[in-house]
Parts: sequence; structure tokens; C-alpha cells
Amino acid sequence: MALSEFELIERYFTGIGASRDDVILGVGDDAALVAPRSGRRLALSLDTLVAGVHFPLDAPVEDIGYKSLAVNLSDLAAMAAEPAWLLLALTLPQADPDWLERFAKGLAALANESGMALIGGDISRGQAVAITVQVVGYVDRPLRRDGARPGDGLYVSGTLGDAALGLQLWQGGQRGGAHVDHLIERLHRPTPRIALARALADLANAAIDVSDGLLADAGHLAERSAVAIIIEPHRLPQSSAFRNLAPAGRAASLAVTGGDDYELCLSLPLNREEEAQRRARRAGVELTRVGRVDQGRGVRLISAAGQTISFERLGYEHFPVETG
Amino acid sequence: MALSEFELIERYFTGIGASRDDVILGVGDDAALVAPRSGRRLALSLDTLVAGVHFPLDAPVEDIGYKSLAVNLSDLAAMAAEPAWLLLALTLPQADPDWLERFAKGLAALANESGMALIGGDISRGQAVAITVQVVGYVDRPLRRDGARPGDGLYVSGTLGDAALGLQLWQGGQRGGAHVDHLIERLHRPTPRIALARALADLANAAIDVSDGLLADAGHLAERSAVAIIIEPHRLPQSSAFRNLAPAGRAASLAVTGGDDYELCLSLPLNREEEAQRRARRAGVELTRVGRVDQGRGVRLISAAGQTISFERLGYEHFPVETG
Repeated sequence: MALSEFELIERYFTGIGASRDDVILGVGDDAALVAPRSGRRLALSLDTLVAGVHFPLDAPVEDIGYKSLAVNLSDLAAMAAEPAWLLLALTLPQADPDWLERFAKGLAALANESGMALIGGDISRGQAVAITVQVVGYVDRPLRRDGARPGDGLYVSGTLGDAALGLQLWQGGQRGGAHVDHLIERLHRPTPRIALARALADLANAAIDVSDGLLADAGHLAERSAVAIIIEPHRLPQSSAFRNLAPAGRAASLAVTGGDDYELCLSLPLNREEEAQRRARRAGVELTRVGRVDQGRGVRLISAAGQTISFERLGYEHFPVETG
Repeated sequence: MALSEFELIERYFTGIGASRDDVILGVGDDAALVAPRSGRRLALSLDTLVAGVHFPLDAPVEDIGYKSLAVNLSDLAAMAAEPAWLLLALTLPQADPDWLERFAKGLAALANESGMALIGGDISRGQAVAITVQVVGYVDRPLRRDGARPGDGLYVSGTLGDAALGLQLWQGGQRGGAHVDHLIERLHRPTPRIALARALADLANAAIDVSDGLLADAGHLAERSAVAIIIEPHRLPQSSAFRNLAPAGRAASLAVTGGDDYELCLSLPLNREEEAQRRARRAGVELTRVGRVDQGRGVRLISAAGQTISFERLGYEHFPVETG
């Protein structure tokens, strides 16, 4: 017997995530009810993941569940918010109980880890799998995109290019081996930098998460803050798996333009770098200075010798925003 | 030149809806920031509308924008919430500026009317048009699904069956004439019953909005409240357009099972009916008693002569929930 939307939500999406005392009513009514902690601001974000666009059609279903929440948590991280609640809208060609169970498992793993409660859900029929997750978090000191100032250093967490290379490997059918596994794991299960963002919220002037690639996302930061951003590609942090497997001559391009790493890009006064590094170590995340903020507009790439690098020379073809 | 997601959101979805002093940061950062009014609870809901499933592929684009918000506002109405903020996730096969402009226009009309601000947006590429709207509202006295009590009367707002008949007319290519126009308007531009719900919040014991058809939605109410609900189909309020155009012998079935009217179904102590009627008149909405709540489980249909009517006799074929 085919289950109704109502029954599917009941069965697979009730009681997912942490139990929270600010949730009055979760999944199962016309809307969820929460009692926000008094005097605290909220950050809200929603993102859709479409099969074949935002994740490979053959990605492990648990990983699709995990990543759907991770990319949204990454937006909360970029605001230095503390995750609280999530809502989920699924569009599916058919209701496959095995798919739903595995998806819910992956989602629940990260929801629990993040202390979030799933409070609302909606399942619709549609041609392709699409997942919209909505996250809400408390925020005390928001990290916005518009606070970068000339003189700041530009920093990124973790390593860059892993997910883009992981996607190439996955699509090429490569599996197994520590390096390959690491890069594919980075693609399917990105780590939202919640703890790091909250640790740096009072030091940094601005932040954005690296979802479209550092070049594009630094472009958003530059535009919102009305500043120029100079990136030094030779400084970009690369994992050893990436260094080992990146195609010759393509490493710099992949690291600068590759999307889906969900690392943080922060603009931070240089005189706060030492304290920021201390806190990053405590959070267990590498923090690397990759450039600086200047007066002007747009993003420029500079070589170790101080020469401007053209985007073309970098092997970059499609650029989603104007960088002046 | 193709516009990026970023530019599309900037151009079409910035500044939509009311200006609100509880919004700190709207569209354009990693997440929106709001400062909820102290001590008030929030209701959150999200729903996806898929082209060809939740609205006809050839529906006017302004109406798609309007309806995407209306069906979500209807969920807030069913909780007796006061609309505040909305976020929007669009999946589109291609970014057609004309489509986006018309969609935004329809959405903005209802957002303004409801005093809501659009605070976040996301545009993705996908095979079919799909729209996920997330709404948040303040709620003082929530109307839940689980409060119906034996002895209550069952009430609905407005008229039923209009949207289901409107869909048949639309799909049959009928246009023009006051009756046809009325029913198609009811399909494309449902009216969320926000004001009525808030006026009745302290009188009613439970509420749900009629999206899947009264029979199915009363089933949800009965299940959540652990009661039996008796519906008297001859009492169902029908518009004159509906009475004029419903196919002979199909009117009762359409009114009881037709979805998409987005009226409210309320469970209300009988001794409060008079006061409820007074308030409904003030809100300019018809309120009709269509049945009652009893001990037991499930939903039953009873004729004017007091006989049980089988679902089959009503011409009903597919029923999404068990009604015992």
C-alpha cells in the first residue's frame, strides 16, 4: 500500500535530531511552534539541492541527507549562528521507503551532532529529487558579508579544492584508497564550520562560506563590503590528498575556483590574527591567510612574485559574478 | 548575458513585501537576521509547490507567485499566527526574467497585503519549476490539530469545492463568465483565513486548513485529537458559482473531497458558536457548521436523514489516510 505524505512524514521524519526545550510542537501540525529564547536574534536560511546539479545522481543516499543539512548549516556558520531548528521539504518522483530511511539517517546524524531539532516537513511528488532545507539558529554577534575593511587579512578555514577534485574522481568512477576516499568524503559530507565561526565572531569583520569557489565567494564579500580583495593562490591551503591527486597544472585553478568545500572565508584585522589562530587551534581547524582586503572593488589574483594573474591563465572559464 | 543566481535574487527578490522593524538583515547575505519580539512564540511552516502537481503548468505566473505564498499563509492561519517573514527557494529550468518578474509581482501582492517581509531567497536550476516557501509568524494562542473534543461542533469558513471545480474548468479550457471566473480565481488565488483564525483563536479548540479536501483534513484532525468526526455533506457551504456549474450528481463529492480551497476547518464548543459567528461576520467570512465531534475514531459522513453515507456512494476513489 502506498503511504500518504502524512504517513511518510510520521514514519521517517518524526523525532529527528536533538530534543530541545525551545520546541513546543514539532512535525505533525499545520506549522511547528517554537519559543525563541528571549532577547536573542535569529538567523534563517534555506537552500535547495537538486539531484544531478547539487549532488551526483548516484551519491549515497545517507550522504545526500547529510549534505542537505550541511550546506545549510554552513550558511549559519557564515553568520556565526548557533543551530537550533530545521524544516525539510522533499520533492520525490516516488516514495521509496528505503530511500527515505537512508536519507533520514544521514540527516539525523548531522542534526544530532549539531543539537538541532527537525520541526517541520513536507513531501511532494515531482520529476526529480529536490531537497529544500530551512535552518534557524540563534545569533549573538553576526558575521555579515558587508564588514570587510581595507587592511584586513583574508583567511580561509581547512583546505580548498577537495570537493571539486572529489567530484571529478567520483564521476570518473574512482573509489578506494585513502586519498580518493578523503576527497570524496569532502564532497559528500562537508563539515560546516560552526564552532570556528562562533569562536571568531568577535574578532572577524566579515565572513562568507565557500560554496561557489573562493574566487566567486570572495567576489560577493568584496561587492557587499565595497572593497577590493587580493587573493594569493600560492597560499591556498591544500590537503595532502589534493596535492597528490590534482591533475598537473590544474591544482591552483581547482583550489581557487572549485566549489562545494563549505569552508569559511573570513576578513579579519591583521593584528587579531594571532588570537584568531589560537582559537582556531582550539576548535581543531586550520586557519590560513590567503590574501588581503584593499581599497577599490573586485577580486584580483596575485602571484608569489607580486604579479597579477589573469583568470584566463588560471584556466578558469565560467565566472558567475562580475568582479570588475 | 545570463544572470547569476546572485544577480537574479538581487534584481527580483530584494525589498519584496512590507518593511518591518523586526528584520535586521534581509536578502543578500548567507542568512537573514531577525529580532523576534520578546516573549512571543513563533510558528514555522514550509511547503513546496511543483508545476503540474500543485498548479497547472499553464497557470498565470502572477497567480503561481500569489498561490505559493497563500498556501503557506493558510498553514499559519490554521495555527492562528500573525504572518511576519518569508523565505523563498525557487527551482527553475532556466532563468526567464519575464517569468521571474511576474512571479515576484504575484508574491509581493500577497506579502504586502499580509504585512510580511521577504528576507531570504535561493534560486536553483532543475528540470521542473518547483517553489518552496517558508513562512514564520508570531503566535499568541496557537490553534493546534490535537484539541478537538467530543461535543464540539465542526465548522468551515467560506465555501468548499470551488478550487476542485475551478481546476476541472481550467483544464477543460473554459474561461470567462462570472461563475467560471470566480471558481478559477478560487483555484489560482486562494484566500488564507488569517484574520478569521486570529479572531477565533480563543474560542476554537482545534483547527486545520482544508488543502487535501475536507474529508482528508478532518481525518487528520480526528487522528491527532483521538476523536471521531461526523460530517453532514448536505450542510457544506457551496458558492453560487459552484452550485451552478458543478456536474449533476458530483457536487457533494467535490465539496467533501475537493482540495485546494484553503478554507479553515475548526472544532469549536457548540456554546461558543454564537460568539464565533459574530466575530466571523466582523471578519467578513462565512462560518458554517458542517458536523460534529464525537467519541471514537475516524471520519463518518451522515445524510440529512441520519444515515451513514459510504465513501464509495459519494463517488470517492482515492483516499490518502486511513479513517478507520
